[in-house]
Amino acid sequence: MIVSVVPTAQLAQDIDFSGKTAVVIDVLRATSVITTALDNGAQEVIPVKTVEEAHSLYATSDTSKTLRGGERNSLKIEGFDLSNSPLEYKKNAVEGKTVIITTTNGTNAINNVKGADEVMLACFRNAAAIVSGLLRFARNDVAIVCAGTEGRFSLDDGLCAGMLIELLKQKTEVETDDLGLLLNRFYNESKDNLLGALSGCFHLKRLFTLGFYDDIRFCLLTNCVTTVPVLRDGRIIKLQNL
Amino acid sequence: MIVSVVPTAQLAQDIDFSGKTAVVIDVLRATSVITTALDNGAQEVIPVKTVEEAHSLYATSDTSKTLRGGERNSLKIEGFDLSNSPLEYKKNAVEGKTVIITTTNGTNAINNVKGADEVMLACFRNAAAIVSGLLRFARNDVAIVCAGTEGRFSLDDGLCAGMLIELLKQKTEVETDDLGLLLNRFYNESKDNLLGALSGCFHLKRLFTLGFYDDIRFCLLTNCVTTVPVLRDGRIIKLQNL
Repeated sequence: MIVSVVPTAQLAQDIDFSGKTAVVIDVLRATSVITTALDNGAQEVIPVKTVEEAHSLYATSDTSKTLRGGERNSLKIEGFDLSNSPLEYKKNAVEGKTVIITTTNGTNAINNVKGADEVMLACFRNAAAIVSGLLRFARNDVAIVCAGTEGRFSLDDGLCAGMLIELLKQKTEVETDDLGLLLNRFYNESKDNLLGALSGCFHLKRLFTLGFYDDIRFCLLTNCVTTVPVLRDGRIIKLQNL
Repeated sequence: MIVSVVPTAQLAQDIDFSGKTAVVIDVLRATSVITTALDNGAQEVIPVKTVEEAHSLYATSDTSKTLRGGERNSLKIEGFDLSNSPLEYKKNAVEGKTVIITTTNGTNAINNVKGADEVMLACFRNAAAIVSGLLRFARNDVAIVCAGTEGRFSLDDGLCAGMLIELLKQKTEVETDDLGLLLNRFYNESKDNLLGALSGCFHLKRLFTLGFYDDIRFCLLTNCVTTVPVLRDGRIIKLQNL
């Protein structure tokens, strides 16, 4: 399997993903949130770029079963039902619901890979499931897109990319690029202490400063759910038949 | 000193470098070539984007003291005087000359950081001198731009970025970004065997396949020259008073 790694969502804009499976990672916190929402029974998650889009889509939806979630500057958006904390996406909040979501980095990254044959959303929590999904369904090259933080490479996403490559290598032959090699090495050196390895990470430090300790701990738990979010016609649903 | 690292030349296009010192790295081989040319007495190096630009500039130059150098697909360009092998840029070839140069990645990277207050060109060979130059002349933030290979991050450039950060840290307090942290760590783990650390590097493997063993060895020698190439009005000259 040929696996490339794109360091930021922005760089994904210029890549032709046709014929590829794209795996988008935004550990802190979009892909962790979406995975959690679907794992807890949300029917679908609709990623949109702007707050305005979220409001207009909500206005034309069945509001009894629709929620708006996401963040700007890491905080809950005014008028929204949920923030970008995965801890809020519990079963009693999201089961059977449509969640319209907008975040600063993650939803942009998803938007930039729309041309891919298949789009999967990964985080530490579903890493092994993503690898099963790739082994079963990826018919061609895989491009892992690290969402990054405000246009810059983010170590948390990179560490998760390194984990995916390692798990893939344990199951099949993997040919990766220079960034993939570096991140795979970083993961192997760090796997016993992910939090320690990310202690200098800009995004983690910002969330830490804002007091989101529980979110960070939640997002760094590995392989605790088997939900693989996939994009279908602009909506993210749980991959069936995994 | 605040030091950020940009993973590819392409990403540099969207960055505002005003008020910053940009350090461009294309270890294999553009910045190694330009450093060598100036170290061996070339008067100046003029980076241009296309082969056509190189020919038209040459046509209006004093051809007795002008050379055309560079590569396409790693090989010498038809009608050019020099290839992109630093070994050709010896004193008897380049002393007192103007070298017009065009390469696939490096000259694009230089072009994309033109808005910076100061542009320096770094490679392993002049790393310590670059750090002296930064400590002496950089008045503000430093952005290290890894040229990359055909739009992708290249491990050789990243390892050199990690070395620059390490050398800076030995002299001053450095605040870097997530990619800088990762590359600094990679350099510290690899400094005793740079060639070994780069054994999986795509660009190095390609040059190896083409038989450029001596070029690779030459480009991976550290701190053997004190020349710091800087950009002045589109021309690269040797920084004086270092």
